[in-house]
Amino acid sequence: MKIFILCIIISILALIFSLVLAFSIFKIQVMNAKIKEISMLISKGAMTFLKREYSYLIVFVITLFIILLFAINIYTALAFILGSMFSMLAGFFGMKVATYANSRTVEGALKGQNEALKVAFSGGSVMGLCVVGLGVLGLTFLYLIYDGNVSYLTGFGLGASSIALFARVGGGIYTKAADVGADLVGKIEAGIPEDDPRNPAVIADNVGDNVGDVAGMGADLFESYVGSLISSITLGAVAYTGNLNGILYPILLSSIGIIASMIGILVARMSKGKNPQKILNLGTYISGIITLISSFILSKIIFNNFNSFIAISSGLIIGIAIGKITEIFTSSDYKEVKVIAKQSETGAATNIISGLAIGMKSTVLPIIFIAIGILTSFYIMGGHENSYMGLYGISLSAVGMLSITGITVAVDAYGPIADNAGGIAEMSHMPSKIREITDKLDSIGNTTAAIGKGFAIGSAALTALALFASYAQSVNLKNIDILNPLTLTGVFIGAMIPFLFSALTMESVGKAANEMVEEVRNQLIKNPEIMEGTKDPDYERCIKISTTSALKEMILPGILAISVPIFTGIFLGTEALGGLIAGALVTGALLALMMANSGGAWDNAKKYIEASGGKGTGPHKATVIGDTVGDPFKDTSGPSMNILIKLMTIVSVVFAPVFVKFGGIFLNIINK
Amino acid sequence: MKIFILCIIISILALIFSLVLAFSIFKIQVMNAKIKEISMLISKGAMTFLKREYSYLIVFVITLFIILLFAINIYTALAFILGSMFSMLAGFFGMKVATYANSRTVEGALKGQNEALKVAFSGGSVMGLCVVGLGVLGLTFLYLIYDGNVSYLTGFGLGASSIALFARVGGGIYTKAADVGADLVGKIEAGIPEDDPRNPAVIADNVGDNVGDVAGMGADLFESYVGSLISSITLGAVAYTGNLNGILYPILLSSIGIIASMIGILVARMSKGKNPQKILNLGTYISGIITLISSFILSKIIFNNFNSFIAISSGLIIGIAIGKITEIFTSSDYKEVKVIAKQSETGAATNIISGLAIGMKSTVLPIIFIAIGILTSFYIMGGHENSYMGLYGISLSAVGMLSITGITVAVDAYGPIADNAGGIAEMSHMPSKIREITDKLDSIGNTTAAIGKGFAIGSAALTALALFASYAQSVNLKNIDILNPLTLTGVFIGAMIPFLFSALTMESVGKAANEMVEEVRNQLIKNPEIMEGTKDPDYERCIKISTTSALKEMILPGILAISVPIFTGIFLGTEALGGLIAGALVTGALLALMMANSGGAWDNAKKYIEASGGKGTGPHKATVIGDTVGDPFKDTSGPSMNILIKLMTIVSVVFAPVFVKFGGIFLNIINK
Repeated sequence: MKIFILCIIISILALIFSLVLAFSIFKIQVMNAKIKEISMLISKGAMTFLKREYSYLIVFVITLFIILLFAINIYTALAFILGSMFSMLAGFFGMKVATYANSRTVEGALKGQNEALKVAFSGGSVMGLCVVGLGVLGLTFLYLIYDGNVSYLTGFGLGASSIALFARVGGGIYTKAADVGADLVGKIEAGIPEDDPRNPAVIADNVGDNVGDVAGMGADLFESYVGSLISSITLGAVAYTGNLNGILYPILLSSIGIIASMIGILVARMSKGKNPQKILNLGTYISGIITLISSFILSKIIFNNFNSFIAISSGLIIGIAIGKITEIFTSSDYKEVKVIAKQSETGAATNIISGLAIGMKSTVLPIIFIAIGILTSFYIMGGHENSYMGLYGISLSAVGMLSITGITVAVDAYGPIADNAGGIAEMSHMPSKIREITDKLDSIGNTTAAIGKGFAIGSAALTALALFASYAQSVNLKNIDILNPLTLTGVFIGAMIPFLFSALTMESVGKAANEMVEEVRNQLIKNPEIMEGTKDPDYERCIKISTTSALKEMILPGILAISVPIFTGIFLGTEALGGLIAGALVTGALLALMMANSGGAWDNAKKYIEASGGKGTGPHKATVIGDTVGDPFKDTSGPSMNILIKLMTIVSVVFAPVFVKFGGIFLNIINK
Repeated sequence: MKIFILCIIISILALIFSLVLAFSIFKIQVMNAKIKEISMLISKGAMTFLKREYSYLIVFVITLFIILLFAINIYTALAFILGSMFSMLAGFFGMKVATYANSRTVEGALKGQNEALKVAFSGGSVMGLCVVGLGVLGLTFLYLIYDGNVSYLTGFGLGASSIALFARVGGGIYTKAADVGADLVGKIEAGIPEDDPRNPAVIADNVGDNVGDVAGMGADLFESYVGSLISSITLGAVAYTGNLNGILYPILLSSIGIIASMIGILVARMSKGKNPQKILNLGTYISGIITLISSFILSKIIFNNFNSFIAISSGLIIGIAIGKITEIFTSSDYKEVKVIAKQSETGAATNIISGLAIGMKSTVLPIIFIAIGILTSFYIMGGHENSYMGLYGISLSAVGMLSITGITVAVDAYGPIADNAGGIAEMSHMPSKIREITDKLDSIGNTTAAIGKGFAIGSAALTALALFASYAQSVNLKNIDILNPLTLTGVFIGAMIPFLFSALTMESVGKAANEMVEEVRNQLIKNPEIMEGTKDPDYERCIKISTTSALKEMILPGILAISVPIFTGIFLGTEALGGLIAGALVTGALLALMMANSGGAWDNAKKYIEASGGKGTGPHKATVIGDTVGDPFKDTSGPSMNILIKLMTIVSVVFAPVFVKFGGIFLNIINK
């Protein structure tokens, strides 16, 4: 009991720290009127989107609340409300601060690179600390008021998941519609550079960075964080009957992870040096080491052995390894990006083929690492003797991977803030010295974002796996047999869903980008003064187009992700649903890796050619095409996979009692 | 016993019929010297490739024979030799005839469209009849001399599978290296039309059609045909102990399918009419109806119920449905191709995005059909009471789908022959009337090829599923539990293999195409007379490049497909291997569908824009890029998936005794 209250205190501390950081950003004065104006436009655009999105989501949340109330129970339904609220709160606050931090980063750059880095990183840290603080606070609070009845906690996860889906899909469509639309007309037709204020879609593009990369990513990791904890708590309760050790260990470790993240953030903020990448890495390493040592000690104290320490470390190592592999496949320092650049010499077609091939190849090592992680954490916990212990081990590895979420989100969210700062500096015609600083911070942001994507995919896969184990336990399945044709059917349909989902989100980006192209073209044709620079374009119309399309297009994928598992469970039964989850999990993770890495590699192949002076040449044009194909890959469809696999799994966990009650309508008919 | 001899007689009849057809083609005199010359070049090029390929394969076959001899037994090893020989024989003979039929089709066109169609279709029929004749002959012969010991038959399947892998992968790389290489320099740089004799790679391109689309496709379907029969025979032996009914039914049905195919071929050959598509459809429908009626009667006679008839029909219906869905997604008569054409207006990037999205979406219905087919054929045979009966039902649906392979291969192989005829007519400057005929036949060939691809994928998925069931039976697994982390690991790794495999084959095409581009450029620069038309290019050097690259690049994927299941089985055990097969099967089928349909849709979007007079415009250029990306998709990586999933499964079936003996080294260590 006392320990749980300690955890609550730690989580509240994290939230207070994030408030302090937020105020440190708010209090920086922006002197330049142009910067102020642009920053206001971005902030307003982002908030408009979030408000309209949330007005949709409230309808959704209430509907699902009522369904849960009747189909499951009031406790789960209330937990669902809390999970949704916390996810929205984290997204709202994190993004609000990010849209303030961008202009303050430009101000900071006036004082030097270290100051700019500090502001941008503080902005990211607010998001990171909100995610972990609200996660542990919500779960511990529910655990206490529900008097240790862990099954209700899944509602909290469902809330986090469903908000995350809409945030990721909506945000992803928003950001890429604006980006692709701005590029297609601006760069290619009108011949104006990126972030040029004459482009009517430029503010929408900047808003998109916040909406997709800050709010969407934050909601994604909030879901993973919460999901892995819920899974380890529910499995821990089954694996250790008679004592709370199985529950205490992951909650305590996460709380220590929060402290470690705060220390890491403080160290990084205080560090000075020429290489911002090193400073960010330092913070991450410190947090990681503190968490590892604590997990070693906790393991000894609570379980009197080091097995759980090994499970936790295996997760952390997988997370770092997948991040590194992502870097190897998407950074121009390594071979693969250079191969794409080389293949661009024979045109766009060979650029696309080699980018797709590299994305596909990049799935190999992460999958092998995940496989090793599964086996290690299962067997080290003695899964061959007691399978619940083994499954608990798998959930611990997910918790381990996510234990330092506080600082990984901070580093990840720093990227779009630096990117925005660069845009603002460009649009407000800052001196080149300032832009050099923001460019440098931005380019590091690209690397951290790529690594962050790898981390998000890895954590989503492990969390979904852990929740898959919880699902089996909650529907009382001792095994899920793929020789059973119903299970096999489930696997086939489940594996197909990520393909359908990717197709839908890619088409949505296409449609929304087309609307944006029309609007931008129209404005430029009707008002030639815009290109002369004597009249401001109508930014708000572009923002409105992105907002409306994104919200409209997120509905179908959202319904799909929630209804497919429910229908499968009711009609084909729990074993088929198990197959469905496994199938979706596997292809979802593969497509997520492939899309993120193809997209990242195409992007950097373009930058590589630009850096070697190839701008405007044939090969460069080929890489621009590759980069545009990669946009929805890496920022819309790819990241949506993370949510899809977690959401489908947690829906199955929450609705488990319903499936057990119906017992598979199809089978009942067959057996009659 | 007598019935088996009857089956042998029928299969020999099919082979005699194919010889008769072959001689009817050989005896047509080619008068035009230019046609003769070009045809000789193509024929020689194709045979050179096949001979060099077979010289590699013999080494491979002997190596695997020795392994089988020591690891399994002499009977399986000998059956393996026979399967390999028969596959090579079918490929060699079918392709030899196809390379004769192409020039004779041009000769036929001089007499009119019907005559040209008759020659081209006869050429295709030779391949079709060889496939089914050699398949039934080999299996029935082995069954008799092995005195009904069905377990040795799997060796025959392994032989067919491994030859198919090299034929499909090697042929696919050959054809696309030549095609992409010819297009990149010819169409884009030199500005000469397709099939222009001044292009040094043009003969290699035509050889590629025979190597990839005739020999590769034939080997693919030979494998499916043989695989589905082996699976139903081995499962039938277990499901019906004490009598031979379970074995008799599929063998008899296939023999009747051979007769039905011969009747269908005869009817199509004798039909006259303006619409070649209708003539080909007529033949297919007649064969299908005869087979369905026979299966109805056989079902009543052998089993005294109609359950097996329903299982058979479900397979046939799935085959036809997947073909139709393929047509809907890849023909310009329907919406999807028009969407790609529309999206090409904003450039190559949006063309690529929408093509990928359409390919992904096109997986939905085929997967649902396969799922329905699995459930129908399993439960109708009473699988809920006796799972072997249900699995036997699944294998019957595969047999049903493949029962009319004779005519489907004939229709499919007709396409590349007509395509080649068009090329020869173009190169030998035939009058436009002749080229109109060959163009018409070629355009129908594109549709039949697309449908054939859908059929090949569907049959591969069902065959692999049936073999998967045989695998479980041969290693005595009562269930394959995905909650077991070893199985889950297997699923993950298995699902990743098709991604790796696709990446490898796509990169191979890229590499080989680049070599081809260099060679073509070199020839055109060093010999300006070639472009003036006063000197013939050195076709043979291009043929040599395609041959060498294709053979070199097929080795790694080949080793991968065979060694991964063997290592998994030995180290992780039989249940993990079951997971591996299931994972590979599911993503393999998904990627195959996606790649085939994206590729087909891109191709036809280009043709659609050309047909509406858009040649040379911006959108047309965008579709040319899409089409080039689609080339390795639809003709190399996509079709290779079919073989990959079947080969990995049959390897697992054949090596089952080894895995059982080792019992999973990893688990043994854990348990100690």
